[in-house]
Amino acid sequence: AQSSVTLFGVVDAAISHYTARSEFYNDSGRIMPPPANGNAVTRTQTVLSNSANSNSRLGLRGTEDLGGGLAASFWLESPLANDSGAGGLTSFSRRSTISLSGGFGEVRLGRDFTPTFWNDSVFSPFSTIGVGANVISTVGTNLAIARGPGSAVAASDNYLRTSNSIGYFLPPNLGGFYGQLQYALHENVAQSGLPGSPTRKGQFAGGRFGYASGPLDVAVSYGQSTAADATAVNALGLPTGVGANEKIKTFNLGASYNFGVVKLFGELSRVKDQSTTTAPSGLGTLLVARDVDKYNGGLVGVTVSVGSGLIKAAYSRVKFDNDLGPLATPFMPRRDASVSKFAIGYEHNLSKRTALYATVAWIRAKDAQNNAAIIGAATGTAPYLSTGAAGGSGYAPSRSTGYDLGIRHVF
Amino acid sequence: AQSSVTLFGVVDAAISHYTARSEFYNDSGRIMPPPANGNAVTRTQTVLSNSANSNSRLGLRGTEDLGGGLAASFWLESPLANDSGAGGLTSFSRRSTISLSGGFGEVRLGRDFTPTFWNDSVFSPFSTIGVGANVISTVGTNLAIARGPGSAVAASDNYLRTSNSIGYFLPPNLGGFYGQLQYALHENVAQSGLPGSPTRKGQFAGGRFGYASGPLDVAVSYGQSTAADATAVNALGLPTGVGANEKIKTFNLGASYNFGVVKLFGELSRVKDQSTTTAPSGLGTLLVARDVDKYNGGLVGVTVSVGSGLIKAAYSRVKFDNDLGPLATPFMPRRDASVSKFAIGYEHNLSKRTALYATVAWIRAKDAQNNAAIIGAATGTAPYLSTGAAGGSGYAPSRSTGYDLGIRHVF
Amino acid sequence: AQSSVTLFGVVDAAISHYTARSEFYNDSGRIMPPPANGNAVTRTQTVLSNSANSNSRLGLRGTEDLGGGLAASFWLESPLANDSGAGGLTSFSRRSTISLSGGFGEVRLGRDFTPTFWNDSVFSPFSTIGVGANVISTVGTNLAIARGPGSAVAASDNYLRTSNSIGYFLPPNLGGFYGQLQYALHENVAQSGLPGSPTRKGQFAGGRFGYASGPLDVAVSYGQSTAADATAVNALGLPTGVGANEKIKTFNLGASYNFGVVKLFGELSRVKDQSTTTAPSGLGTLLVARDVDKYNGGLVGVTVSVGSGLIKAAYSRVKFDNDLGPLATPFMPRRDASVSKFAIGYEHNLSKRTALYATVAWIRAKDAQNNAAIIGAATGTAPYLSTGAAGGSGYAPSRSTGYDLGIRHVF
Repeated sequence: AQSSVTLFGVVDAAISHYTARSEFYNDSGRIMPPPANGNAVTRTQTVLSNSANSNSRLGLRGTEDLGGGLAASFWLESPLANDSGAGGLTSFSRRSTISLSGGFGEVRLGRDFTPTFWNDSVFSPFSTIGVGANVISTVGTNLAIARGPGSAVAASDNYLRTSNSIGYFLPPNLGGFYGQLQYALHENVAQSGLPGSPTRKGQFAGGRFGYASGPLDVAVSYGQSTAADATAVNALGLPTGVGANEKIKTFNLGASYNFGVVKLFGELSRVKDQSTTTAPSGLGTLLVARDVDKYNGGLVGVTVSVGSGLIKAAYSRVKFDNDLGPLATPFMPRRDASVSKFAIGYEHNLSKRTALYATVAWIRAKDAQNNAAIIGAATGTAPYLSTGAAGGSGYAPSRSTGYDLGIRHVF
Repeated sequence: AQSSVTLFGVVDAAISHYTARSEFYNDSGRIMPPPANGNAVTRTQTVLSNSANSNSRLGLRGTEDLGGGLAASFWLESPLANDSGAGGLTSFSRRSTISLSGGFGEVRLGRDFTPTFWNDSVFSPFSTIGVGANVISTVGTNLAIARGPGSAVAASDNYLRTSNSIGYFLPPNLGGFYGQLQYALHENVAQSGLPGSPTRKGQFAGGRFGYASGPLDVAVSYGQSTAADATAVNALGLPTGVGANEKIKTFNLGASYNFGVVKLFGELSRVKDQSTTTAPSGLGTLLVARDVDKYNGGLVGVTVSVGSGLIKAAYSRVKFDNDLGPLATPFMPRRDASVSKFAIGYEHNLSKRTALYATVAWIRAKDAQNNAAIIGAATGTAPYLSTGAAGGSGYAPSRSTGYDLGIRHVF
Repeated sequence: AQSSVTLFGVVDAAISHYTARSEFYNDSGRIMPPPANGNAVTRTQTVLSNSANSNSRLGLRGTEDLGGGLAASFWLESPLANDSGAGGLTSFSRRSTISLSGGFGEVRLGRDFTPTFWNDSVFSPFSTIGVGANVISTVGTNLAIARGPGSAVAASDNYLRTSNSIGYFLPPNLGGFYGQLQYALHENVAQSGLPGSPTRKGQFAGGRFGYASGPLDVAVSYGQSTAADATAVNALGLPTGVGANEKIKTFNLGASYNFGVVKLFGELSRVKDQSTTTAPSGLGTLLVARDVDKYNGGLVGVTVSVGSGLIKAAYSRVKFDNDLGPLATPFMPRRDASVSKFAIGYEHNLSKRTALYATVAWIRAKDAQNNAAIIGAATGTAPYLSTGAAGGSGYAPSRSTGYDLGIRHVF
């Protein structure tokens, strides 16, 4: 055992209240009778939540100086559901890595954050948590859960984190430039003579490059997750299948500028969920139809220091651009959706490690029925009513408000 | 990370042997042939058990002095099944809290013991564990498991502990008076226009108030757990349902008096499991039938210090008073039950932290067939035979003996 | 809490590549058409693996000096799947014990390694892990999983470890002699008047005795695991059933001799999987047929120190001797199988605690179709193709290669 093993963590708890209003929509083109439950249904919930200001966690990390500038280190970090204690240390799903670092930078093996996640988090005043969470992150998480490759550790994998990854980080002494690359193995089995083998489902590759000096911090990242991979092959030996070869491609750019008392934040994000439908044409050729759904997001935010407190405000927005497919005509109705959130909060620091905080957030969603599972029209875990489907009728989440009133302690 | 994070725990293991004797009963009013397995069936089991003297556990806790008498603290504590290692740190189900304390007392958020649990534990020489466990606690646990609201963390919730709770503790400087209040959120969703929404199932509210000074310690507690809540509504908008609106109401009073070598313990407990059956009468009115089952318990105990050892003895008893309902007549047979336990043990302290111990306990149950799942007629996990139901015939647990022979180490 | 609680662990990660070749076999005695997938199918997989040089783990242990040579101690140790973080500290399945030790030796209660496991591990240059793992251990693990009593903690229980065990260890001052005994309780319930009750399934009893002095270390061990136990009883009150009373009996002998730069290793192992099939003969007597499958194994290995590095090489082999039953004739075809592995590796120590390592291993299996699940014809988790059954036709694993390229850090 070594003396440099550090036990660290965060315990964060809040009283949270969520309100989610769903409105009746009718995109069916037919006249509908008035809905039985009225034009709007509101659901509310009050909970003891965790991690509304900082993610509750428990971790161990350590570093060994190997001499000559070389070091070996490990990092094991688990989330904490401290409102109920549930889950305990069931998984080091926040991070689980071993590293070798030196003048060349750092090579890191294991489970780690994706490079593309960082801009959603560090250039957002409320990071990606609590009712004020960056809505770009909410949509990114939902997209990974709904369309991503899935994972035994977390359904949101390849958005927030990857398992089985090999990471490389530039050394810290590059005059403010920083950067990282990450590749996550798909670990699928290849079999001789089996076309389409191995599937690359689960693979991730991406990087991030930035510059931080004085008041300025700016970074750009790109990553590509293989959400599905065609394994079926037709008589011609060509891949075939509906929605096959699905890739989620994320590009984002974030920056912050610290004027002293006031700090500004901004982010632009462009996520493409792209898949290919392939079918034999009957003439010995293949028809390949590409479907590219887009999620374009942006955030502007500010924090203002007031004594031992910090005021935070942020506006974030995502526009879903629904690709209607190769047969779409200009006469077809659009099936897009959008979500925007405004959040304001105050953090009162009792010490460097302990703070009381309050956050309020308002969400407005448009045409959420066209992508209710992903567009994320809810503060916190607000349990909105969502019925029907795109092109039909039903209730779709339209507005949500939420507040967190809590305490956060770092140890 | 802070230097004041404390890793603490208990590892307790014992060789335990349980014997459970079930006897044939015939409450059917009809003549029955002799049972195939004889008038009594005895089951025995020898196991390596954990937590027969003190609950095996592993925890982390820390406190930060915020100045001005204010402090922030956290406490994460997991049970340990050290006989097999199973479960590891799967859940901080023993306690998972963050607190802010000061001259005003302490506000505590998260998962914690209920106020009503403490008297069952601290005023019992064998606490609530091992073969000598206070039988009031055995019945309370079984009642929560069988009739309580249930929980993702532990089926016994709202008896022993609650999740999502807000607690308040009086400050320690009140001349011996101490006290606490606890409210646990039900966290259920309310929907506009939906009668009976939200259900309050899972909610807990309670408190404890006591006085400890010199040799005397005395405390009283009361708590109410919402085990079920009617959500069905009839045509008149009134709640309807069988066994709806179920509440478990616990009141107890405990005391100990330390004469020096000899310390006396006593407890009185009254638990009501009360539910309402509502039905429309057909005349536009509602028939409301209330069912109130009672569990009345008591304990007397003593410990005697002998050198570095401690002799313990306790007698505890619970009487189940079965409410036969509003249509009951004095001519109907009673369906009550009772259980009593006598336990004697010796604890040999090898140090302040390490002890060898031996406990023997005898249980006698009467009419256990009327409430076999709850009346708890078994030492340890003795696997008694229980067949048939109240008013029928079968085997019911009648006697159980058990011993624990173990070692306990605190770190 | 005590200052002597030690947090310790290992984080070990590797890039591993596995190749598994399966060949077509035809034991059916009939002429078969050529297989559709060809005479051989090769599967490959590249993964980020953990524990290829030392088992990743996280543990806590502590000792309290009780005076007079007496000490109390505990040990809680969890495995780590640090490639994905999955599992966290879900189970202290590596070890979970409390001990009392003194001049008499040590009494240890809880979950611990079996005595019979140690020779497979300590007298193997690659221990029992990574692609170079002792193949005797691979077969022992597979046999426990396929035929053993099973366990809630690990399917391989009673080979590698037992829960609910009572262990005794000789004191360390016996002039080089060392030894241990272990008994694991079956914990099954006995019922009065129920023949065959309790079943002893899950019970383990064994011991190990050795001598280590100067360059020599030699040890012998024997253990017996009750994998199944007859509970059915015929009209005569005698046990009956197919494959009942199954016991896995393990005997092994290992030694190492350290010449300084060069260290030699050797092991011999004999495992019997023995069961009884009992049936009434119709004449009031019982026909008892015994089935004794044998697994005979051996290992020779060497390590060579080169500066701060260590070269390792090992050859291990297991021969499966299939008992064809009491009705077998010399004219029946044999249904045996065998596996052999050669592994070579290099460990480069960056410090006492941190090493880079590379291992390559080759496996050759013969007639694996006769026991594919147990004979273990794969490096690492190489996903070989295995179809058909003994006496039929299909694909059976024949060759496997694998490499691990990794880093190991002890803390």
